[in-house]
Amino acid sequence: MTQPLRLGLAGLGTVGTGVVRIVRQKADLLAARAGRPVTITAVSARTRDTDRGVPLSEYDWEDDPVALARRDDVDVLVELMGGSDGPAKAATEAAIAAGKDVVTANKAMLAHHGQALAEAAEAAGRLIRFEGAVAGGIPVIKVLTEGLAGNDITRVMGVMNGTCNYILTRMQATGLPYADVFEEARQLGFLEADPTLDVGGIDAGHKLALMAAIAFGCRVDFDAVELEGIERITIEDIRHAADMGFRIKLLGVSQMTGRGLEQRMSPCLVPADSPLGQLEGGTNMCVIEGDRVEQIVLRGPGAGEGPTASAVMGDVMDIARGMRISTFGQPAASLAQARPAQAATPAPFYLRMALQDKPGALAKVATVLGEAGVSIDRMRQYRHDASTAPVLIVTHKTTRNALDTALVAMRKLDVMAYAPVALRIESV
Amino acid sequence: MTQPLRLGLAGLGTVGTGVVRIVRQKADLLAARAGRPVTITAVSARTRDTDRGVPLSEYDWEDDPVALARRDDVDVLVELMGGSDGPAKAATEAAIAAGKDVVTANKAMLAHHGQALAEAAEAAGRLIRFEGAVAGGIPVIKVLTEGLAGNDITRVMGVMNGTCNYILTRMQATGLPYADVFEEARQLGFLEADPTLDVGGIDAGHKLALMAAIAFGCRVDFDAVELEGIERITIEDIRHAADMGFRIKLLGVSQMTGRGLEQRMSPCLVPADSPLGQLEGGTNMCVIEGDRVEQIVLRGPGAGEGPTASAVMGDVMDIARGMRISTFGQPAASLAQARPAQAATPAPFYLRMALQDKPGALAKVATVLGEAGVSIDRMRQYRHDASTAPVLIVTHKTTRNALDTALVAMRKLDVMAYAPVALRIESV
Repeated sequence: MTQPLRLGLAGLGTVGTGVVRIVRQKADLLAARAGRPVTITAVSARTRDTDRGVPLSEYDWEDDPVALARRDDVDVLVELMGGSDGPAKAATEAAIAAGKDVVTANKAMLAHHGQALAEAAEAAGRLIRFEGAVAGGIPVIKVLTEGLAGNDITRVMGVMNGTCNYILTRMQATGLPYADVFEEARQLGFLEADPTLDVGGIDAGHKLALMAAIAFGCRVDFDAVELEGIERITIEDIRHAADMGFRIKLLGVSQMTGRGLEQRMSPCLVPADSPLGQLEGGTNMCVIEGDRVEQIVLRGPGAGEGPTASAVMGDVMDIARGMRISTFGQPAASLAQARPAQAATPAPFYLRMALQDKPGALAKVATVLGEAGVSIDRMRQYRHDASTAPVLIVTHKTTRNALDTALVAMRKLDVMAYAPVALRIESV
Repeated sequence: MTQPLRLGLAGLGTVGTGVVRIVRQKADLLAARAGRPVTITAVSARTRDTDRGVPLSEYDWEDDPVALARRDDVDVLVELMGGSDGPAKAATEAAIAAGKDVVTANKAMLAHHGQALAEAAEAAGRLIRFEGAVAGGIPVIKVLTEGLAGNDITRVMGVMNGTCNYILTRMQATGLPYADVFEEARQLGFLEADPTLDVGGIDAGHKLALMAAIAFGCRVDFDAVELEGIERITIEDIRHAADMGFRIKLLGVSQMTGRGLEQRMSPCLVPADSPLGQLEGGTNMCVIEGDRVEQIVLRGPGAGEGPTASAVMGDVMDIARGMRISTFGQPAASLAQARPAQAATPAPFYLRMALQDKPGALAKVATVLGEAGVSIDRMRQYRHDASTAPVLIVTHKTTRNALDTALVAMRKLDVMAYAPVALRIESV
């Protein structure tokens, strides 16, 4: 196998230029490792004349990524344009139809069209690999699909949006409120054009849905991911959680139980001294639990030119070395349509509320919780100067249903200054 | 590819029975993921009649692992006997000669004979895979060889002997001296029959040498690993290090610089709040740094039936899926004989000493350090009741040569109660 592996590169943003740099600067290393040269034949991007800091003149240029994908002298389409539909999907479909493998970092496309694309690829005997789509430089797709293939996976978790983790840890470090740190992140260029993709948990939810498909052998079902963003997290939540030994993370959790498939991307409390709790800034972390391996934790940069290009090149090198594996770790046709869990695995919850300073206020809250079957593990009422007193409650393990019953009843109490905030405490 | 992949399993200890359990209990899952059944044809162990808690009667029995390796109805030898030579090596060689792939968890065999075995395997067009040999359930060999194949690796580090980490973290937690905790570990069955393999760093050194070969594209050179065990670490070192914000770990470090290949397995100080510093008990951690991916940290169980069998099955599943890759990530013949570094990368050091209570004692130490070109970052003299005073010094970054010059001169001083202890502070 000494024929070069010829890439057609669609998308020349940060990651695309990172891939060009690796292919140019490490030709000998890649050839030694793959047993064959890895080359770029042609590239495509929206604008041709931008100076991207890497020489591109020796590659053919295609204005149309679909034309790029169909070229006879391209073996692998490297799709780094992004976007769930449009040119990215068109080029991916064209590449598969033309008998080419695809390497992509496009989480949105796969979260929405992963099943159809995987079926098309397998029908054509081609591969789709997407390490760069999940958790930046961390090779979590490889670990999950290949390294842990001897396990029944029991739970996958991840902090996979660096921007959200930056905002939450920066609030913790500075004591600044959400709005200030959000604005800071925006000015630093950390946020997507539509910030809801980040702070609303959508971007991280895409990644979780892809991991769940591999972990549990089911069709990607992004629509079933329960999404909750970090927009409602206040500096008081951060402080109070810390006070009780926790950190708040935008945490993805997926597990398969008798109740069905759970997929949640939501702000959770985790122990401050756990690996997840200690994760700072833009770093990502994935936790995979299997019935044999117990728990594997992977930590690394969640974005950036070098790390994401590293992940993309891992896929390219696998293909160059002759690796053939189904998109989601088993044939797409054999992936089940998982039933979304009607009820989440019970967990303790953190509740924040403010009670009006009336005799018996706390008793009313405690009564409502007790009637719903929610028992209290710890409770703190803080000193206050205003007419309402901040109260924190950590419950014992409870179902979300019981908790919701209690929350509905609590909102009706005449002592409640605002609707209580409830955050799940995930055991990690 | 619907022919079953047929395993011959040599060694039925903890890991071997773990592999049998996975193959028996997960037949459907493995077949779905691999696209073909994975079966066991025959097994071999030293004693036949032991009750191992798993049914073995449906498998053929071979007294001789070499005969097992040669069977026509075996595609892959799974070598889980251990030992650098003897039956493990004979069976591995026989399997390769007979055209079978080999999956092994045998770090000692590969540390000593990895190059010759890899060459033999590649000449025969066969594979040797060894995920279970390094860091238990953590798929670090896969991450290093495949996931990060687009990187020039700059440094690999690892806490890869769970027993040593248990001893060190238990000393920290209880305040008990080394000898007591060592005895406790022995009684718990955590130590090898020859405990030097653990506490002398040999076992972990084997693992480091295998990682270095992949990381830097060179022949395994275990003899060049600088080994230093944890036997000299006192409870005072643990306490003093903690006092200065550090933890002591038996840490493997390998890096390639202009000075050559560094491979050290030695007790080091790492920041208490770093992932390595926070690692408790028998858990392992590997850190891989690459020029593109920055830093990837992998954490997981370092031993045990389930985790190690998980790693072995990861290799088996790769072979079942048709993956073909060189033992150390590139053809064995192309691996260079790396020149061992004559001098380690400069680092700060921790020095512990006891000075006799004489005027000018500290000045003499400071003078000797200054004359050797070693400058002091922090120094603490502790209150004492005896005739000698404990003194701790954290140096600025220095070469080991300069430090050794200072240590030789310090030993000659008339104020020194014992030869000073020096531990490297690794930046992580």
